[in-house]
Amino acid sequence: MAKAVSVGKRAALRVAVLGATGYAGIELLRLLVQHPRVQLQVVTSQQFVGKKVSEVYPSLVGKCDLVLEEIEVDRIARQIDLVFAALPHETSMDVVAGLFERGKRVIDLSADFRLHDPKTYHRWYREHRAPDLLREAVYGLTEMHRKDIAKARLVANPGCYSTGAVLGLAPLFAERMVHGTVLIDAKSGVTGAGRTSAVELSFSEVNENFKAYNVGVHRHTPEIEQELSAFSKRPVAVFFAPHLVPMSRGILSTMYVELNKAVEEETLARLYQDFYRKDPFIRVLPPGIFPQTKEVRGSNDCAIGFRYDLRVRRLVVITAIDNLVKGAAGQAIQNMNLMYGWPEVEGLRGTALVP
Amino acid sequence: MAKAVSVGKRAALRVAVLGATGYAGIELLRLLVQHPRVQLQVVTSQQFVGKKVSEVYPSLVGKCDLVLEEIEVDRIARQIDLVFAALPHETSMDVVAGLFERGKRVIDLSADFRLHDPKTYHRWYREHRAPDLLREAVYGLTEMHRKDIAKARLVANPGCYSTGAVLGLAPLFAERMVHGTVLIDAKSGVTGAGRTSAVELSFSEVNENFKAYNVGVHRHTPEIEQELSAFSKRPVAVFFAPHLVPMSRGILSTMYVELNKAVEEETLARLYQDFYRKDPFIRVLPPGIFPQTKEVRGSNDCAIGFRYDLRVRRLVVITAIDNLVKGAAGQAIQNMNLMYGWPEVEGLRGTALVP
Amino acid sequence: MAKAVSVGKRAALRVAVLGATGYAGIELLRLLVQHPRVQLQVVTSQQFVGKKVSEVYPSLVGKCDLVLEEIEVDRIARQIDLVFAALPHETSMDVVAGLFERGKRVIDLSADFRLHDPKTYHRWYREHRAPDLLREAVYGLTEMHRKDIAKARLVANPGCYSTGAVLGLAPLFAERMVHGTVLIDAKSGVTGAGRTSAVELSFSEVNENFKAYNVGVHRHTPEIEQELSAFSKRPVAVFFAPHLVPMSRGILSTMYVELNKAVEEETLARLYQDFYRKDPFIRVLPPGIFPQTKEVRGSNDCAIGFRYDLRVRRLVVITAIDNLVKGAAGQAIQNMNLMYGWPEVEGLRGTALVP
Amino acid sequence: MAKAVSVGKRAALRVAVLGATGYAGIELLRLLVQHPRVQLQVVTSQQFVGKKVSEVYPSLVGKCDLVLEEIEVDRIARQIDLVFAALPHETSMDVVAGLFERGKRVIDLSADFRLHDPKTYHRWYREHRAPDLLREAVYGLTEMHRKDIAKARLVANPGCYSTGAVLGLAPLFAERMVHGTVLIDAKSGVTGAGRTSAVELSFSEVNENFKAYNVGVHRHTPEIEQELSAFSKRPVAVFFAPHLVPMSRGILSTMYVELNKAVEEETLARLYQDFYRKDPFIRVLPPGIFPQTKEVRGSNDCAIGFRYDLRVRRLVVITAIDNLVKGAAGQAIQNMNLMYGWPEVEGLRGTALVP
Repeated sequence: MAKAVSVGKRAALRVAVLGATGYAGIELLRLLVQHPRVQLQVVTSQQFVGKKVSEVYPSLVGKCDLVLEEIEVDRIARQIDLVFAALPHETSMDVVAGLFERGKRVIDLSADFRLHDPKTYHRWYREHRAPDLLREAVYGLTEMHRKDIAKARLVANPGCYSTGAVLGLAPLFAERMVHGTVLIDAKSGVTGAGRTSAVELSFSEVNENFKAYNVGVHRHTPEIEQELSAFSKRPVAVFFAPHLVPMSRGILSTMYVELNKAVEEETLARLYQDFYRKDPFIRVLPPGIFPQTKEVRGSNDCAIGFRYDLRVRRLVVITAIDNLVKGAAGQAIQNMNLMYGWPEVEGLRGTALVP
Repeated sequence: MAKAVSVGKRAALRVAVLGATGYAGIELLRLLVQHPRVQLQVVTSQQFVGKKVSEVYPSLVGKCDLVLEEIEVDRIARQIDLVFAALPHETSMDVVAGLFERGKRVIDLSADFRLHDPKTYHRWYREHRAPDLLREAVYGLTEMHRKDIAKARLVANPGCYSTGAVLGLAPLFAERMVHGTVLIDAKSGVTGAGRTSAVELSFSEVNENFKAYNVGVHRHTPEIEQELSAFSKRPVAVFFAPHLVPMSRGILSTMYVELNKAVEEETLARLYQDFYRKDPFIRVLPPGIFPQTKEVRGSNDCAIGFRYDLRVRRLVVITAIDNLVKGAAGQAIQNMNLMYGWPEVEGLRGTALVP
Repeated sequence: MAKAVSVGKRAALRVAVLGATGYAGIELLRLLVQHPRVQLQVVTSQQFVGKKVSEVYPSLVGKCDLVLEEIEVDRIARQIDLVFAALPHETSMDVVAGLFERGKRVIDLSADFRLHDPKTYHRWYREHRAPDLLREAVYGLTEMHRKDIAKARLVANPGCYSTGAVLGLAPLFAERMVHGTVLIDAKSGVTGAGRTSAVELSFSEVNENFKAYNVGVHRHTPEIEQELSAFSKRPVAVFFAPHLVPMSRGILSTMYVELNKAVEEETLARLYQDFYRKDPFIRVLPPGIFPQTKEVRGSNDCAIGFRYDLRVRRLVVITAIDNLVKGAAGQAIQNMNLMYGWPEVEGLRGTALVP
Repeated sequence: MAKAVSVGKRAALRVAVLGATGYAGIELLRLLVQHPRVQLQVVTSQQFVGKKVSEVYPSLVGKCDLVLEEIEVDRIARQIDLVFAALPHETSMDVVAGLFERGKRVIDLSADFRLHDPKTYHRWYREHRAPDLLREAVYGLTEMHRKDIAKARLVANPGCYSTGAVLGLAPLFAERMVHGTVLIDAKSGVTGAGRTSAVELSFSEVNENFKAYNVGVHRHTPEIEQELSAFSKRPVAVFFAPHLVPMSRGILSTMYVELNKAVEEETLARLYQDFYRKDPFIRVLPPGIFPQTKEVRGSNDCAIGFRYDLRVRRLVVITAIDNLVKGAAGQAIQNMNLMYGWPEVEGLRGTALVP
């Protein structure tokens, strides 16, 4: 664990948010302006340099009126203690490497440091330009890697889909109960695609529409497999089919699992409850009760429901997260809390916005 | 095939729509007012008796200004040739039986006559009060039962989910290519639940929310199994997990299938193309291209896409329909067209409302 | 009225749709493929040249599989009788002029020929490059200019907002009953902005949001004023405040009017009923009943409701249209029907898609 | 100001929320569980008595697991210091009177105590059963009645529409700048109608629809007039036309004002800035910049924009609030903070949920 530098607000941790006007970035700001131990010092943007971030997002007026800057690694390294990088993958790589070299701690929300194996990265993305850093990076699924995250200098914050999938499946893989290929039918709100101007993401196209995309080829697949393989200590393959829901936030992952022996729902309930008994953000529901995305919207919670169907002998596990909170900015802050020895829920106590 | 009674508009087929102010009912009216061989004669409603249907649904002003009546079986039997019954299940049973006794042809959109086996009906609904009629009823999935529908006096129009699922799976089961349990992860717009006042269906609850419901226990399960069993000539069990999408219309069914031998995508493409080559409403997409619900909204089309994943050896089939058209009113009219020897597309040529 | 060239489908009117993949364009196709007297011959697109239009919009498979072309004025002029131009304003100007010179009839859905006065065009848009054509163009608000449209060689199809506003106000201005400035508070679905990739129109920005835009400066203002001035034979100024609704289709215009003398609601009802008694698409509601956008969605209808408030002596008139139908493609086809002496409702009999 | 009873969390203010499972109720809980000086002690519900509130709203698991009770005035009076009553109007009246008699302070979110004049209440609602209490009640529009609220024993929390309208118009009426009737064209999200099971509020009816309702006769009209009359010291009549937006939260009020003399926008900007210079939740935007509902969603902010149109000499003022926060629960807590001498922003520092 790094030294906590925060003694009162004056001595708060100085942080930067790179890519502050993207959706993960703005969600980081929403949460960080309320965090009692943090001082936002630098916010960057490619598109809005020179504007106050509160001009772009008026909800921040009076709460964060910093002027958006270009990324200057040297200057940032001098001014801040911790960097949240919410940049596009492949862009992030070089910036993060630069900051890491200058001794900064970084929580990277891009995909660039999530895969341990540069070959896997190459296969799903492109050639990695900082393969050595892949060994330094800790996969930031907080509930799974607390010890390593606490000491990490570089945290690779997980993909939103990966978070929802792995949290739902980890207890089963840890117990080596899974037989065959797990099918993950995931449904995401549109902010998961980021703040972009693609016609396919325009309201007129998405509204009153439902579709699958990247079935079997989505880039979160190798992340999920890497993590589940680690738990079960054998290579795991999953089939991952994401869908786009006409809503802004939320991921519901419906997962179909064959178990290698018959199990009572009560036993499963105990397994999940035990596995997550120390995790303040994980909510395990009683057997047969499934979560809805709205009950976690705006919060860092992950709700998990399951049901074992005797007729066809399949276990269905469903998880719900807010893709921008537990799936991005919230988990990043949760990781920061760990890294600095603060209570894990600090700055993340907000209740979901219902209705 | 029954005698066609339609010789010019004066001699058009006289039809009644029972339950005309529910969502299936109003969709029947939308389509029937444009049908060149049909004369709407009677519309009934429980809640709005005495009002013009066009007062309840102003879109019908000048197109259908009939006054909503209570259901009087005798009078209806005297006045009309064909009845569309869009009543709640368990209510429909008795009305349909009464009309059938009086020699009327009926297309029933409820669930009451879909299951051939009264015991199965009992298990999923309740005791059937007209079990003899179950032998008379033809399951109205048009593409599968054309000959029987043409001669039928009682057509049991399929469930919306069943339509989307069976159309996507039938070619595989007909060829006996399926191994193990098929998983059907279906996603429906909210009109599928009918025109009701439940809090759970209120805008504030559904909007910006996504959830599963009736996982493994939805009542369309036995319909799907009945049909797939018939094709494959062995008992088939499926696992069916429906979800609610914050949109009004549309069902997307994502189906995961293990095949009992490796198959090329090209082979599958030919199989599907052949199977549906005479079906004007079925659109088979090229391998790897998946349909969206919006491309069928308001039309009687069913679009089918598939992809075979070599990595995990799973076939994914995705179908899209409009739950109120191909999933209800449109298919009912398609069945009527068959029953009277008219072109199957009569009154159903409308293109989907995009965007 | 031009000579009708349509004698059976073989001798149908040959038409082109320029800008066929924009939202007005695709809506033209949706309606034209069902029009019994028209043969779609040419479809153009900037972005998708060489693709079938049914690849871009799968709902058209089997209904319109034409290949999208670039605009070549000479070739189009040889092949077709009537052109629907659904191009961006300022682009449309030159193409329309070229077609007009070659003797073609054109219905232009852009703003380029709607304003009679080149100076007004200059003030709200830019310098007009074909000012002489402004004298040729007939403003295509069908209900107001039937005679001129029937003979026109160039019809300037009205703006969507203008259609909703003028249809609601025309009877009052024709009777010179209006005192002072009319306030038009209009609310539009997102397709009104066209098929574009702006971040502001992305789902994540528009959904769960409501805002005003271009208040007092929207370019449909001078159209509305031009038309109302013509009816009342004096210069009319309106205040126009458009808003963006998180829905795809529909415009509701709420209009606040001071009358120059007290009037009974019954009198107003008669006035509106009389004014529109021959208009198949105008639906005048009883006093105190207001329309909803859903009741006209997908149809060419305009529903008009009003209420006179004695307490504050203000008349409120509310109109509802589908911005893509009566506000664009539908009205264009209505104009075509007039130009060729066909029934005004030909190809436009579709009932609104409810729910 | 009442005596502050809060000395550390043990000695926190003990509060009850009556009607805790309605939308205003659940929003009160969302905010109160984070309030550092409050201890939730009693939650009541008509429909869910005996269940934990966190069973009905799983987002509260671990944050508020109180069991929902029936309302027992005596017991509540013994157990708590302050009551938030979020009951239907006409129901609230008697409960509030009972609590008041027993010496409790009450913040009432119903309409029952907002109107000072029992005759006005009678005209818009029905006979008032506790007319004497109307003299005790302070209208809880915080920014307007701080001193009285601080001392109040009964606060009548304003209507959601009234809050948005009065905050936008107050500076003008305080300066007596308004000529003639103000037109208020307001647009609300669906939660404004509460948690009810009406068909008209079902998703299938509201989605993809926009409509006006209660034009000129909405019950918030007399509240708005009462407040504006008080500011301007003369009777004020407004015309109020509410509309329903297919979104869950947010009210945008577009207000059209004639001024009694020409005014520069700069002057207006200064006027608004001065008027609200001490108000932490009011955000006055620069002239010509209008707010959007999303920028206040989930927060207690009210954003105000305006533009003076020289062409037609009309001032347009637009305000945006979250109807459940500043329009209900948030303002109620703001009032509580005043009543107990705490910082006005306590428990209300949350930033809007964007996107």
